[in-house]
Amino acid sequence: MQARPSPRLQDCRQCDRQDPLAPLRERFALDRAEIYLNGNSLGPQPVAAAGRMRRAVEQEWGRDLGRSWTRAGWSDLPRRLGARIAPLIGAGPDEVVVADSTSVNLYKVLCAAAHRARQAGRLRILAEAGGFPSDLYIARSVAEQHGMTLSFIDPRPLAAQMPADAGIVLLSHVDYRSGRLRDLAADTAAAHAGGALAVWDLAHSAGVVPVALKAAGADYAVGCSYKYLNGGPGAPAFVWAHPRHVGQDRQPLWGWRGHADPYGYLPDYVPAADIGRYQAGMPPLLSMTALACGLDIYEQAEPLGGLAQLRRKSLALSGLFMACVDPHAQALGLTRLTPAEPAQRGAQLSYRVAQGGPAIVAALAGQGVLADCRAPDVLRFAFAPLYLRHEDAWHAAQRLLQVLRGGLWREPRFGAGAP
Amino acid sequence: MQARPSPRLQDCRQCDRQDPLAPLRERFALDRAEIYLNGNSLGPQPVAAAGRMRRAVEQEWGRDLGRSWTRAGWSDLPRRLGARIAPLIGAGPDEVVVADSTSVNLYKVLCAAAHRARQAGRLRILAEAGGFPSDLYIARSVAEQHGMTLSFIDPRPLAAQMPADAGIVLLSHVDYRSGRLRDLAADTAAAHAGGALAVWDLAHSAGVVPVALKAAGADYAVGCSYKYLNGGPGAPAFVWAHPRHVGQDRQPLWGWRGHADPYGYLPDYVPAADIGRYQAGMPPLLSMTALACGLDIYEQAEPLGGLAQLRRKSLALSGLFMACVDPHAQALGLTRLTPAEPAQRGAQLSYRVAQGGPAIVAALAGQGVLADCRAPDVLRFAFAPLYLRHEDAWHAAQRLLQVLRGGLWREPRFGAGAP
Repeated sequence: MQARPSPRLQDCRQCDRQDPLAPLRERFALDRAEIYLNGNSLGPQPVAAAGRMRRAVEQEWGRDLGRSWTRAGWSDLPRRLGARIAPLIGAGPDEVVVADSTSVNLYKVLCAAAHRARQAGRLRILAEAGGFPSDLYIARSVAEQHGMTLSFIDPRPLAAQMPADAGIVLLSHVDYRSGRLRDLAADTAAAHAGGALAVWDLAHSAGVVPVALKAAGADYAVGCSYKYLNGGPGAPAFVWAHPRHVGQDRQPLWGWRGHADPYGYLPDYVPAADIGRYQAGMPPLLSMTALACGLDIYEQAEPLGGLAQLRRKSLALSGLFMACVDPHAQALGLTRLTPAEPAQRGAQLSYRVAQGGPAIVAALAGQGVLADCRAPDVLRFAFAPLYLRHEDAWHAAQRLLQVLRGGLWREPRFGAGAP
Repeated sequence: MQARPSPRLQDCRQCDRQDPLAPLRERFALDRAEIYLNGNSLGPQPVAAAGRMRRAVEQEWGRDLGRSWTRAGWSDLPRRLGARIAPLIGAGPDEVVVADSTSVNLYKVLCAAAHRARQAGRLRILAEAGGFPSDLYIARSVAEQHGMTLSFIDPRPLAAQMPADAGIVLLSHVDYRSGRLRDLAADTAAAHAGGALAVWDLAHSAGVVPVALKAAGADYAVGCSYKYLNGGPGAPAFVWAHPRHVGQDRQPLWGWRGHADPYGYLPDYVPAADIGRYQAGMPPLLSMTALACGLDIYEQAEPLGGLAQLRRKSLALSGLFMACVDPHAQALGLTRLTPAEPAQRGAQLSYRVAQGGPAIVAALAGQGVLADCRAPDVLRFAFAPLYLRHEDAWHAAQRLLQVLRGGLWREPRFGAGAP
């Protein structure tokens, strides 16, 4: 096998000059001295969020007060934000609502799915071993509550390991740790073929991988808006239920927001006929307002190629990083966990290190490259295409190689040797 | 019975000059041309929130990003805010946490209570008929989920109507509609005497009525922070569980935040030993940061007399309003729903009107007095003592009398005659 030549900085810069998405970088308040590869953890601040939040605090809260329910559109903000997320996940505009956290939304959809699965006599929930812990905790709680069992599959396609008695399959589209991308259509089809409902966590795919929930005929999905959607720290989550289910769904958090007539103060609970029923109590309106600024940028990306172009660029960025790093990986004790095949990787690359994970991340931060480490030994690098340049991917790779080659991370100031 | 002389404006102004809490009014960004009696719906903006939120957006999110988990204290913000609410509700500092919405928190505590009640063979949940609809919806959902029944009491003391088989009593400390204040200690004792757990909704009492949860030996409480705590639109809610319960409590929203080691990414769910287990997923950090500004003002009130002084002033304000309005109530078709006895009223006065509720509120707003109407016919006036003056209560009363006497509200511009 012939080694490919390592990417050159000048070629990266050429790519940046030709990048139709390049102007979007200016929409983010990033420190230009840093390369931000943590967008899978907390997306950066849209520049516009500063002014928008000032207006939310001083005008909408400060001066208009309760009048903002109509004037500023607080009343239908959860649905309006949902309608703007919908095209990113392949759903209809009336099928998504923003509410609560991903964990709470997952509880709601798993309870709804569990009611259906029990009716079908299917008492097994299937999830991926090593999946996001909070998802697995919620799945276990719902399983116990509904007299079901929770069992596990591995990262291979679902069809290869689908049991006969599952009622619900809960999967992350992109694994938070390995960065591996599942085939949402194929796994949904395999779940259905095996008689189970398919529930997807899109936390690490929404906004960077085109998602086609409805085309795949998936059943339920939840996701997070503070990662690639750049909605702000702790921005509320979203939830989708297929229209073939939603009108009969039973989710147990019967708060006033999910009522068919939320402002009617009626004595009996009548859930909204549509996805609105997946709301519960009062939405965190300031946090929701910030989320709108993140979604604005996705709409600005639309005429520049939209999600398809974002996906192409993200793959190019991570491809570039791999091309720089991988030829040296073995010598440096790095093992890539994310598959190289574009069909199997999201926007993130994960590498296992032989030793020194947190110290390597600290040393990289000292070099202006922000990444993270999932204890004890997995480095994660997220290639968010709205604000990263090809040049950034190249520099980040070079600095990782330097940190590892020079043993920089072994210095006590980076915490090497600490427990 | 001899008519008392109507309060005089000059006496109100004298009270304002002597009011130790008067300086706190300057902490709020209120329109000085308006009298804001909607603090039971959405508390006004603390002046400091503008700068604090600018820092949250531009520094903590914009520049520090994930470093804010430690630098800005995001990690323990839910507990730190809870510890600051604790003295307002008579709880220990480690016994309260801020999380989710009131409805979601009520679901959690009612599920925990339902597990206990079922173990005791008590399958009835008791709530007040006409209580806050969202609370009743949640109670009905939990009742169905746990094979329990929901039945109702009236506004009288619980002891007079406690059945023998109740497992849980859910009550609002102050009723959202009538403004009636329950005796938390007596009703808790009556619940316990009848073998039931006492669960309190403090949405309309926290911050304006001294609450003594622990002294009363109550079992669980939830409450809202965007009303009298002035935490901002949709500010997250709080939850308390008595320490005698919390370590064994089972609430079904097993999110990572409630884990004993939330950052450990452990495969199995082990709930925090304390109130921390009542958290679920990611907290809305921007909304939480705004809440801190509301709580700051309660701490500034402490050396001025604190909650006892706030309660005295609130009763004085509502007493003043009653003294102005009530002598004319019958002639104007007003019926006060809130009891006059201080022991039975919160910070809010409610009046039923013979006709024209929403139009009366609109006409009052035209006169610079912001109140609200709970359909179809209940006017609500909240006397929040942090920012209202005695003079405001007097002017509000005079303008209400003018609007009713002059029939101003009957003008089509106020929507009179509209459906």
